[in-house]
Amino acid sequence: MLIGLDIGGTKTEAIVLDPALHARGHATRSTNSRTPAHLVEGAVQTILEAMEQAGAARGQVAMVGVGIPGQVEPETGEVRLAVNLHLTAFPLGAALEEALQVPCRVENDVRAAAVGAYRSGGRGAARNLAYVNVGTGVSAGLILEGKLYRGAHGMAGEIGHIITEPDGPLCNCGARGCLETLVAGPAIARMGQEVVEAGEETVLQNAGTITAEAVYEAAASGDGVALRITEQVGTTLGRALHALVMSYDVERIVLGGGVTGAGEFFLEAIRRAWARERAQSALARALLRPEMLCLTEQGRNMVAYGAGVLAAEAARYVSASADGSPFLTQTS
Amino acid sequence: MLIGLDIGGTKTEAIVLDPALHARGHATRSTNSRTPAHLVEGAVQTILEAMEQAGAARGQVAMVGVGIPGQVEPETGEVRLAVNLHLTAFPLGAALEEALQVPCRVENDVRAAAVGAYRSGGRGAARNLAYVNVGTGVSAGLILEGKLYRGAHGMAGEIGHIITEPDGPLCNCGARGCLETLVAGPAIARMGQEVVEAGEETVLQNAGTITAEAVYEAAASGDGVALRITEQVGTTLGRALHALVMSYDVERIVLGGGVTGAGEFFLEAIRRAWARERAQSALARALLRPEMLCLTEQGRNMVAYGAGVLAAEAARYVSASADGSPFLTQTS
Repeated sequence: MLIGLDIGGTKTEAIVLDPALHARGHATRSTNSRTPAHLVEGAVQTILEAMEQAGAARGQVAMVGVGIPGQVEPETGEVRLAVNLHLTAFPLGAALEEALQVPCRVENDVRAAAVGAYRSGGRGAARNLAYVNVGTGVSAGLILEGKLYRGAHGMAGEIGHIITEPDGPLCNCGARGCLETLVAGPAIARMGQEVVEAGEETVLQNAGTITAEAVYEAAASGDGVALRITEQVGTTLGRALHALVMSYDVERIVLGGGVTGAGEFFLEAIRRAWARERAQSALARALLRPEMLCLTEQGRNMVAYGAGVLAAEAARYVSASADGSPFLTQTS
Repeated sequence: MLIGLDIGGTKTEAIVLDPALHARGHATRSTNSRTPAHLVEGAVQTILEAMEQAGAARGQVAMVGVGIPGQVEPETGEVRLAVNLHLTAFPLGAALEEALQVPCRVENDVRAAAVGAYRSGGRGAARNLAYVNVGTGVSAGLILEGKLYRGAHGMAGEIGHIITEPDGPLCNCGARGCLETLVAGPAIARMGQEVVEAGEETVLQNAGTITAEAVYEAAASGDGVALRITEQVGTTLGRALHALVMSYDVERIVLGGGVTGAGEFFLEAIRRAWARERAQSALARALLRPEMLCLTEQGRNMVAYGAGVLAAEAARYVSASADGSPFLTQTS
């Protein structure tokens, strides 16, 4: 058995996978990040609960895979700069291994999700794939030639900090107009707040706290002002994904993260942006195929699944490549 | 012996490399692209001339590597969409093999140059490197984890068509504001033409045909109007290279192509743009290190050299990776 664990800013989720990577158990808890010790304790409890549900004894677990925000050193399991979890530098892998007496593999959450999205594609998987997370921030996990690509310093795919509007809003990183400041959840909420403060005629005037979710709900119900915001997000994101295709020449883009909860309505705005670019340019027509874009399955935790796949790879239950090898076969 | 051949829009250049990848002969001719037959004939003559200079007989040449603009299918040696050479689809590899009776390997010119730049780095080479060509167009050749990365359809690194200014100038591809329309040679010439037509006070008023070279010369001599153009190019290119670093997390960016002929003066404008971004953002400070940027050696044809390296790899004279293997050792 294998464990896939997603430690997020608000909740921690564990799944138990059998050697064929089918889910056998599942548990969710609120993340308690008061101290690293609390975080580890919560992770262990979530894992034990999922194991109990799966009827799996501790000795049956070959490996634990963990997906967590921030900079991760997979060789050592050290996590740095996971700001939302109050971790500046913490040996998470070692701490979990000690608590569980099971080997652990830790990876950045978006990269883990990219591995999950790649493996979900099965034998016919695109060998070049980007998983793009649009949530509190924006970043991409990359599978290039069938392998997870991390870059020289583990920073590949940090597309949220590409300067997209040089005179745009101030970003947490200090620069102006980073992609995150235009399309991430907090940016959409801010734009909603701005139209309310400007006194525009929108159902958002009646909303309490204005969240990205509220803006998408209003837009989906036909609110013109909210729709203007979501169209703008679609246009900007469409252009960013266009740039991503030109940069990496990926065959598939899987979108996940909180903002994608708006589902097809979210995706359609990006497709419209691509349709406009395709109408203008032969090159865009050749490269931006609408069917490249898809959303993660609703209700499926791609981070936890991908972390489980990474655990399976590390335990040599499966090959790191979905191609050219028996798919999901236990080899040890 | 190995041949490296650069077939460019204006000239064709061949170098002869010994097994240690040192140049032993060299020849240059104007490219005659009237018909594919003329192109092949010119290539063959250039190669024979370089071989004669090196004192190399035909039987001593193990492999010919070719770098050429356009979309190249390295498996078959077919070249597509090399617009400046009037090739829409041509089996260049097969044609050269027949004419020379030596096996050929064909690659896109910018990718060949990336291989050359990587190999030039020697044992201590950055394993993640981008070669960025700024000439008639803009594109990047990518070495990721020590290997040439081509993407799913051989289109990786086509950064010249990333939409950078949505309301910018019309691009040949049909879109508006592609990076090429802002920083490539013809774009710089166009901006020079515009300031002349606007009657601005600049030495460019006395220039005959306004080229990118003329604009850089004027700027380097202190012409304020020309300087405004070259600074703008530096800012836009600096931002594009910033995006490239965020996307791929490369350790080194090597700049080549016609526009980089302006040398350090060209590079300094990019460095100033990076300095401004570094001043704003801690993330930019961590990732954009000025020493990452460099120019190809003046007078060195990186396309021809890289094509020769690809030939050496194909002939198994050297390993495809500069690391972890004897550097430049003849293995067959």
